[in-house]
Formats: sequence, C-alpha cells, structure tokens
Amino acid sequence: MIHFDCDYMAGAHPEVLKAIVDNNNTQTSGYGEDDFCRNAKCLIRKACGLTDEAAVHFMVGGTQTNATVLDGLLGRTEGVIAAETAHINVHESGAIELTGHKVIALPQHNGKLHADDVRTYLHDFYADETWPHMVAPGAVYISFPTELGTIYTLEELTALSDVCHEYHIPLYVDGARLGFGLAASNDVTLRDVARLADVFYIGGTKMGALFGEAVVCADAQLLPRFFTLMKAHGSVLAKGRLLGMQFGAFFTNDLYLRIGRHGVALAQRLRKAFEEAGYAPFIDSPTNQQFFLLPNALIDRLMEVATFEYWGPRGAEQSKVRFVTSWETTEADIEALEGVIKA
Amino acid sequence: MIHFDCDYMAGAHPEVLKAIVDNNNTQTSGYGEDDFCRNAKCLIRKACGLTDEAAVHFMVGGTQTNATVLDGLLGRTEGVIAAETAHINVHESGAIELTGHKVIALPQHNGKLHADDVRTYLHDFYADETWPHMVAPGAVYISFPTELGTIYTLEELTALSDVCHEYHIPLYVDGARLGFGLAASNDVTLRDVARLADVFYIGGTKMGALFGEAVVCADAQLLPRFFTLMKAHGSVLAKGRLLGMQFGAFFTNDLYLRIGRHGVALAQRLRKAFEEAGYAPFIDSPTNQQFFLLPNALIDRLMEVATFEYWGPRGAEQSKVRFVTSWETTEADIEALEGVIKA
Amino acid sequence: MIHFDCDYMAGAHPEVLKAIVDNNNTQTSGYGEDDFCRNAKCLIRKACGLTDEAAVHFMVGGTQTNATVLDGLLGRTEGVIAAETAHINVHESGAIELTGHKVIALPQHNGKLHADDVRTYLHDFYADETWPHMVAPGAVYISFPTELGTIYTLEELTALSDVCHEYHIPLYVDGARLGFGLAASNDVTLRDVARLADVFYIGGTKMGALFGEAVVCADAQLLPRFFTLMKAHGSVLAKGRLLGMQFGAFFTNDLYLRIGRHGVALAQRLRKAFEEAGYAPFIDSPTNQQFFLLPNALIDRLMEVATFEYWGPRGAEQSKVRFVTSWETTEADIEALEGVIKA
Amino acid sequence: MIHFDCDYMAGAHPEVLKAIVDNNNTQTSGYGEDDFCRNAKCLIRKACGLTDEAAVHFMVGGTQTNATVLDGLLGRTEGVIAAETAHINVHESGAIELTGHKVIALPQHNGKLHADDVRTYLHDFYADETWPHMVAPGAVYISFPTELGTIYTLEELTALSDVCHEYHIPLYVDGARLGFGLAASNDVTLRDVARLADVFYIGGTKMGALFGEAVVCADAQLLPRFFTLMKAHGSVLAKGRLLGMQFGAFFTNDLYLRIGRHGVALAQRLRKAFEEAGYAPFIDSPTNQQFFLLPNALIDRLMEVATFEYWGPRGAEQSKVRFVTSWETTEADIEALEGVIKA
Repeated sequence: MIHFDCDYMAGAHPEVLKAIVDNNNTQTSGYGEDDFCRNAKCLIRKACGLTDEAAVHFMVGGTQTNATVLDGLLGRTEGVIAAETAHINVHESGAIELTGHKVIALPQHNGKLHADDVRTYLHDFYADETWPHMVAPGAVYISFPTELGTIYTLEELTALSDVCHEYHIPLYVDGARLGFGLAASNDVTLRDVARLADVFYIGGTKMGALFGEAVVCADAQLLPRFFTLMKAHGSVLAKGRLLGMQFGAFFTNDLYLRIGRHGVALAQRLRKAFEEAGYAPFIDSPTNQQFFLLPNALIDRLMEVATFEYWGPRGAEQSKVRFVTSWETTEADIEALEGVIKA
Repeated sequence: MIHFDCDYMAGAHPEVLKAIVDNNNTQTSGYGEDDFCRNAKCLIRKACGLTDEAAVHFMVGGTQTNATVLDGLLGRTEGVIAAETAHINVHESGAIELTGHKVIALPQHNGKLHADDVRTYLHDFYADETWPHMVAPGAVYISFPTELGTIYTLEELTALSDVCHEYHIPLYVDGARLGFGLAASNDVTLRDVARLADVFYIGGTKMGALFGEAVVCADAQLLPRFFTLMKAHGSVLAKGRLLGMQFGAFFTNDLYLRIGRHGVALAQRLRKAFEEAGYAPFIDSPTNQQFFLLPNALIDRLMEVATFEYWGPRGAEQSKVRFVTSWETTEADIEALEGVIKA
Repeated sequence: MIHFDCDYMAGAHPEVLKAIVDNNNTQTSGYGEDDFCRNAKCLIRKACGLTDEAAVHFMVGGTQTNATVLDGLLGRTEGVIAAETAHINVHESGAIELTGHKVIALPQHNGKLHADDVRTYLHDFYADETWPHMVAPGAVYISFPTELGTIYTLEELTALSDVCHEYHIPLYVDGARLGFGLAASNDVTLRDVARLADVFYIGGTKMGALFGEAVVCADAQLLPRFFTLMKAHGSVLAKGRLLGMQFGAFFTNDLYLRIGRHGVALAQRLRKAFEEAGYAPFIDSPTNQQFFLLPNALIDRLMEVATFEYWGPRGAEQSKVRFVTSWETTEADIEALEGVIKA
Repeated sequence: MIHFDCDYMAGAHPEVLKAIVDNNNTQTSGYGEDDFCRNAKCLIRKACGLTDEAAVHFMVGGTQTNATVLDGLLGRTEGVIAAETAHINVHESGAIELTGHKVIALPQHNGKLHADDVRTYLHDFYADETWPHMVAPGAVYISFPTELGTIYTLEELTALSDVCHEYHIPLYVDGARLGFGLAASNDVTLRDVARLADVFYIGGTKMGALFGEAVVCADAQLLPRFFTLMKAHGSVLAKGRLLGMQFGAFFTNDLYLRIGRHGVALAQRLRKAFEEAGYAPFIDSPTNQQFFLLPNALIDRLMEVATFEYWGPRGAEQSKVRFVTSWETTEADIEALEGVIKA
C-alpha cells in the first residue's frame, strides 16, 4: 500500500535524519543556545539574503508557531486578517482565539487572500467611526502555498506587502509547505518572501523534517523578548539542537529546495496522468497537493493500491479527492497510480 | 435639538431613578446580597414564569454581560455561533476572543440567524472527521431584537431552541433591547423567551435604566460558581443594590413593557410619517430602531432639528440613516420630525 | 442598627446624587464622549496638577479598573509586583491572571510594599541568568491606603517611584479609598500621587459615588488605544456621563477631600474611644478602617447596636474586628458605639 | 570536557534513537493515530497497572504539558496549589497564568509540598466567607522528583492524595525526571504514582528521549475533549508516531527504569566522592541532581574538566553548585571528577 494522504506520514528525509543521528552523542546547551542552531540560523539568513540582524526562531510545529508568532505581533486587542479558508481560521482548534485574538476572515480566491480585499477592509474599517468598538486589524496572515495548494505570484505577494505597509501592519507568511511553493513558482524566490513578508516561517515538518519550523523576522524588534513568549506558549524545545541540526541539513546542498522540487515533479506527473485520462483538477494547484473530482469506481480501484483523502463527503457517483506527494513519494508510487488510472 | 441617535442618551426613566433616590440612605450589604436584589429577582422569575430554582444575575453593561455569560457557558476551546452582524462579532472589540473563544459567524438574514443555517453548520461540523482540529460550537447567540431592529417570530425562536437542544448546546439570547422586541412582537412573550432560551438577559441600559442587565438562567447549574467568574471579569458591582432597585422598578406596574410599548409606538408613528411621504424603510423593523434611505436634502433639513446617525457613509444624493426612539422620546419630538418630513 | 461593615453600604453622597438627578433628562452622547465627562476630566487634571496631555479614563469598579489598566500596562508575558496582601493578589478572583498576567507577591509590612524589597527583587531577577524563563516584572502595584488602612509616607512613595523608574517599569497606585488616605496623610497630596505614580485611580465607589473610578495617566501613551481595551474588558459604561457627573461633583467645592476628612475624623474618634477604654488597635491605621482585638463579650454588646466584620475567625475569648466609616457615618453613629464601649 | 549542566545535553539514548531510525520509512497516520502510539500506550498502561480505560496523551515538552494539562483540569477561575519553588511557579515564564490560572504558592520543604500545608490552606480557604472573591484551588501540583532533586515518600504521597480527594480536587504529578525519582525511591513505584495521582506525566526529555512526555490519566473523563485542547495549545505533534516510538522503547526491556538507575547510581557515586573529601551536600537529594557548597578553588579546578551550574550567584570564597547526571553520563565521567576532588 502506498500513501498520498498527507506530507507527514513518514519520518525524516535521510539527510535530515543523518544530522540528528551523527550528532546524537555531542553534548550542547539546551533551548537552542548551541552551535547547531547558530549555524542553521546563519545558513537561513544567508539563503534569505538577510543580514545578521535578522532573527531566526525555531519551533516544533505549525499551530504552535502561528499562535506564538501572532501573539507576539498583535497588540492586546488586535486581530489578524486571513482568508476564510486559512489554517488558523479552520484547523487550529481556535489556537489564535485562545490567546485572545480574533481571526478576521475575508473571502478566499482559490485559497488566496486578495490585496484588494485587504485594502478595502482596512479602508472601510477606519472610515467607520465606530472602529474603536471593533477589533483592530493588527496583521495579515497568508500561507504560501495555501490550504488548496495554490501559490501567490510575485505581483500578488508584492501587492499584499504594499497594503500592509501602507497601514503599518506586518505581513506574516505561514510557510508550512514553503519548499513546495517555491519549487512550483515561476517568479517567487525565498529572498522575495524574506523581503516582502515581515515575518514568515520555513516549514520543516511537511518538508521532510521529523518536526520543526523556522521563524524568520528581518527586523528582530518586531518580536521583542520572544524567547519568554515562546516559553510561556510551551514552544521552546529543551533539546533545541535538534531543530538546528535539521535546518542545518535543509540548508546544506540545497536540500530544502531539492525536496520541494521532488514533491512538485511527482505531483505534476500524477496530474498529467489524470488529465490525459480525461480528469481535470477542480483546483489548479501547481504544488504537491492535487485535487480531482473522480468517478467513485475509479476512486475505489485506486484505493486498492493507495491511501488518499476525500475532500468533503463522498458523492453519489463521483467524489472530490486529494493526493499529496512528499519527500518519501517515489516514481514507482506514481507509476502504480498511473497503472490504475490507465487501466 | 431633539435626539434619535441611540436609546441611551438620557439618564433613567423617572420611576427607575426614583427607586435609587428614595433608597439612597438605606444601608445594605454589597455585591448584590441585599433585599432590593432579592426582591427584583423574585419579580423577574415571576414575570418569566420560572421557579425559585432559576438563577438571576445582575451585571452593569451589555458587552460585559455577553463576555461573562459566554465564558461561563462555553468549554475552554468552544466557540459561539452567531450571525455575522451580531454585536459580539462586530462591536465588542473582541471581548469574546479576549476570553479565548471564537465567534463562529454564520450568514444573517435581516440581522437574524436562521435555524436551518445553524443545523446545517452543526451537521456538517460533526460530519467532517477533522472536527477535533476545529473549534467546537458550544452555544448559539442571538439578540432579540437584532442589531437591525428585527425580531424573531415564535416559530423561528422555537426552531433555534430545537436545534440547540438537539445538539445539546445552550441558546443564549442577548436582550439589550428586549422590552422593545416584546412590545413589537405579535406572538413572543417574556415567558416564551424564558422557556426557549437557556440563558438570556433582560436589558436595562437601553430600556431606561441608568445601567444594568439581568441575566436569567432557568437551570442555575448552567453557570456554576458564577459569582467568582463575574468577579474575575470585573462584572460585580460593589453597590449591587442599585441593580436590584432598578429592576425592581422595571418589574413593578409593568414598567418594563410600558417603556417598550412607548418606544415602539413612537417609532412606528415616525415610520408612518416617512412612508406617507414616500420613503420606505430599507429594513422592515417593527421595533424602536427605524432605517430609511433618504435624499440628502431631507436629511440636512431634519438635522436642523434633530440628531440621528448615518448608517454607513453619506451617499452622493441619498444616504441611509437610523432613528432610535426610547423612554425619553416624546410625541412632540415625533411631531417635530413630521413637520420637517411633510414640509 | 448602624453599619460599619464597609464603605459602600449606602448610595451616593447627596452632592454626588444631586448631579445625577439634576441632569437626568439632559441628553448626551454615550461612552464618555459628553461634556460632563470632559468637564470632570478637566477638574481632575487641575486638581492633580497635570496638563491637558494627561489622560483620564472612567470605569465602573475597582477590580475592573485594576484588571483593565494592568492589562494595558503589562507586556504579554509580564507580571505585576504587589504585596502579598494586595487586593489583586487576594480578593479579585484571579482577574489579573484571567488576562494572562502573574501577580508577583512580595512580603507586606503593615499592608505596604517596601521599595527595598522591590529593588532587591528586581536586582536578583536580572542577576539570575535564567530570567528569560521567568515572568518579567512589568509594573509595581500598591494601594493607597492599603488593605489594612495604612498609608505610605511621601518618602516611601518617592522611594517606590524611584525604583520603578530605575528599572523602567510603571508604578500603579490603586486608590479605591484614595480620599481617606489623602485626608489622613501628613505629607502626601493628590499632586504627589499624580507626580509619583505613572498611573493611579481616584476611587469613587468607596468614597461616596454610586460607582466609578477615575484612572489618571500623566503620559497618555502608557495606555494606548485604551478605549478599545476597556471595551474588550467590558469596562466601558454606555451612559458614561454618569461617571462624569459624579466626578464632577467630587471635584467641585473640594467634596472629595471633604468626604475623606469626614470619614477619617470619625474613625479616629472611634479609635480614641477604644483606646481610652484600654483597647489598642492591632494595626496602626490612620484612615477610615480601624482594626481592634476585642473581648468577645464587648463584641457581642457592640453587635446589638451595630454591624461590623470579624477580621479572620472568631477566637475563643477575643477576636479581631474591623470598623469602617464612610460619608454616611454620622457623629451619632460613633456616639452609639462610644456608649457601648464605655458602658 | 564532560558535562553535568543538565540532563538534556545530548540526544537520545541509543535504544530510543534506534526505534526512530529503524521505523523512519514506515508510513503512518499523523497526530498520534498510529500503531506506535497505540502500542506505547498499552505498554504504559500495563506498567502503571491501569486498565484500557486509562487515557495516555503524548506531548513534546514539560512546560507545554503542564500548561495544557492544568488548563484541562482547572475550572475557568480556579488556580493550582504548588510549592513556591515549583517549576510552574518559577521557570515556565508564566505559562499557567497565560492560560488564565493562578499558581497558589505554598511554602516548600526541601522542594516539597506538605500535605498539612495543603489541608490548612484548603480548610482556611473555605472557612473564609469571602472565598467567592478569591481564586478557588482547583488542583494540586507537585513534581517527583522536585526541583531540588528530593522525592516524596509513599506516606507523603498518600497524604497529598488523601487531602486532594477529601476536597475533590485532582493531584497532578509533574514527572519530568520521574525515572530518576522511581530509581531512587525505597518505596514508591510507578504503580503507586499511577494510583495516587489523578493525572501525572512520565517525563521523556530529561530521561533519554529526543523529546516527549506521556500524560497518564486513569479516569479519562478528567480531561475531556483533550485532543482539541492540546491542538489549541499547539501541543499536538504532527508526526505523533515519534512519541509512540520513543515511549515504546522506554517501556520495552525496562529501559526507562534502567536509565533512571544508571543516572542515580552515578550521582550517588559522585556524592560519595564529595562526602569522603569532606563536602556535604546542602540538599539531601537521592536522585540524579546533586547540590554542593564548594570552595571556589575546587570549583575552578573542576571546571577545567567539566561544565556544571552555579546554584545562585558565585560567593566570595565558596559557592553553591549543581551536578546533574543522565543516561549519557559514564563511569569515566565520574572518575574524572573524582580525580580532581581527591587531588
């Protein structure tokens, strides 16, 4: 049985795991105050084109990262603007609200937030004289790629960055699958993300780490005394070195992007197989998540060789399904699906 | 100059103020442990058709009441379903989120939440196997009347109560203007509200009190150790007797409903004047708030004699405006407007 | 029966009540945007010797005020230093913690916090290299008078102010009974409090208002966007004018201090009566709270004519009790007690 | 250079790491819904003498675990009783307060909380009629071993359990170093902890895991809908399998206790070396943490071969220091210290 349920079903990419295993007996200080972390932070700053002044903070998982970072960025009664389909608005069990902040949901367009919608919201907000009775928008959240596998163009990203800076609020980019997004993009590079986002995180968990996310903040003062906030959120890993080792591996020999390209290439090969058989995707995703409306009969045959998820309830005759590739997907895995699709 | 901006522009109705003044020198225990409060609670329970087991809790203002009650009703990671236009979703500065709870916004229909939408949401929520990653709906919030002055029919209220009980979550009714709603309704009585809502509050501030709201909870165990929660929310009034005195007055000689009927009658008279002059309301409100789209020229003339609010930005030729009546509005006030409208 | 249980057992001082009654029918904007509030703020700034730049915010009750102000002053993971007996540490049901902040309790000395203890704590805190794992002290809270009726000398207050400024954290003074403290002090004036505290509140509830506290903040930027925070805390009164009217009365013809002097004078007369009968106070309070260890037999006789509180459990032969005077206490009330004491 | 700073300076015990490496390519569901977790939970329940009804929840780190569990156990306005030196009161950056709960600090005795102090506090609390204005004690927190390396006897643990059950509040045991405590104890077994604590956690991070803590809750209903609360706290690990693999290894061939005994034996050997050289510990710790007051000259010589922490500031002539052993400490490491001590 092969697996396309999600991108965190296996352990770590061998190069990542090796970094942990090879250094297992080395003793270091805890809480990220070690050379592995220092080295990884340097590599990340360099890959992002940032100076030594930029802060890099390592955390364990995505929800934790979103909740801690946004709690750091937002004023006490500020909320965060996000697409209605955003992970923080739907699938984080209210982690943002638990820390006291409202998610201000705006319409999504193929999973994306439009800069125009954000500008209109911000304009209308301050045009309404009752705004002191309302939750002030204190940041904008997007994910790259989005929940639906779509990605922002450089123009779209720039427009979002512009409107944020016009209103003096930070743009925060959730990069849980950043590597797949960058591999799929024609024009957005890691340096662009680092330049246009005030804060973003480089996702590790879904990109081939055992776990781990790296928050990058060009202006460290946007997240002052952040270690204490992380600790209060339970976001500090005692053996922080593990995060340094993994991100050190990711940013050595271009591993992070290699994994991204691997996942994207296999996803596009799968998409081509479906399209050649006459099945168009219902979302046009260039990344490692592929969404198809398929006849139930085909779904049933595919499920004899592979696991993957329904996207919503099973329909009467056809259903929406999602296939996700990752570092652990192989050419052979795709061939197995192709065999069923063409049969 | 006469005022139609809101229903809390003057002090208290004379009968309410008299209760405070007449008893000013009487000494009592604090925090609501006094005979004025005990008496008012009895009167309220009786008016609601509830037994002595029902809990009545007095608080000072509406936002405070909503935040404290919902914090008491909701589990730690539960949210509250509300219409997107609900006061708690728009105009309480994120008070609900500040206490850790998400407002789950559903579409509004003339300011109202439809039982069908609630049922669909609840059904789909538990049909989605990822629901443990989502904010569980732990209560339903409506206001009677709504932000737009509209009211639920007995059938609509019953349907909402039914769906709540089907899913074992409480229905909470924000009655900031309850008296105006009851006065305007053809079929809903205070006893109906008390029977169909698990918790509701009888609004005082907008109905002619200096301040004060009375939370009614037929099953006191829905809000256990509520005094401590109120205290932690800063919702306990030291001289709690003031709330007892005012609600005692409201529920003596039917004052509460008399005020409701007064405000509604004058609002309807005003509406008739506009309609006869050819201006239809853009929201069909039977209560003390009236919404009209008027030529700017007429608005300007009306503003020479009265204050009232724009409902959104002023338009190029015509604009939306709101008129609110209350206990302090007089027949002469309406006549003054009529004079301008007919001129 | 006469009452010495607390200083909030009756309504409002006649001059305060008159301000509310006389202006009952005047219509104004809500939420404190009215001339009564504007006028009262001017009077308060003037009495405090502050410029027009100083912010004055009105709230309803003490716990609400403490929780809202400290939530505004403290960073997300900062706590507030207070004496172990402080109201916020004992009798506010965890209102400070509910908003996410720790109360850092230091030893009390007759209810007071010593500047030396604060300095030692702050020094040792930053000398401990693990401090980023700890709750950073973000403000110092004291009350004037304290829970035990004691007051700080000008020297003590200056020392506290100095250590706060040395460590760049604000000094916040809870003035629930400020008027009694100022009336009792030999050297501290309202202007001193306004000069030495970064933020303080002038208590109304216990000083003869129906309710209400006035927060004074010489540097308005210490509490930015405070209206929204107040609203989120449920601390905004719709008919905010009531607070303006009452504080307007307090600061007209020196009423606030007159009430303070009245309460203190009667308390000291009562103290003298006890002392002359051979009963020394167990706390040396110069204000309107008096604490005595009395034989149970005397207590029982006093309780035939008056109510007052035990301070802790009743002892086998003698017990600690507290007597509180206020604006409503009369010379005749004291005489009645004197009659029993001397009998 | 050898290291005695803490017990989390190296990676994982080889048997733990092997479980992760050997299963790296196995694909499973995420979020702990996998066979590794199911198996580990069975092993833990069995080792604890608990039935299949008992809940086991895996989390990543200690602060996260304490904050999430206590947030689940405590009512909205309840606090947790703990020794003043408790980790949650000192070194978790206010994580408990961030979720709205007060830490009610009682005196410590060699790092331990005494049942008598708890009983007195609980008795006095409810004897004080103002208790509804106070934070209700909703749980008791202890750690085993304590911050000072000390452990509770079976009698002490039973007494704490008794007083908790007498007042119907849960006893929660932080077992960050549980294995060292059990290895050091003469009479307390894992089954005793499981029987006497309502909830406890088996620490992994400090016991030889890469990370991970296992919360055990005999009555699963004490933590209802706990997955959602964990998610909201950012405590759910996407690749939850890693926790199952590690705890599976811990509870295979008695590894967990073997590590405990290893650390304790080496710590006691080190203690003996100091004692024979005339240096008595200033805390009598039977576990893997050892505390000595040493001449600065000796400290300086020891620091030439090893790293360890000062316990407080360095003194003029002698200083307090702490040595911590762990799975990675070797006999050779101790011999190296012995060489210096005896020199």
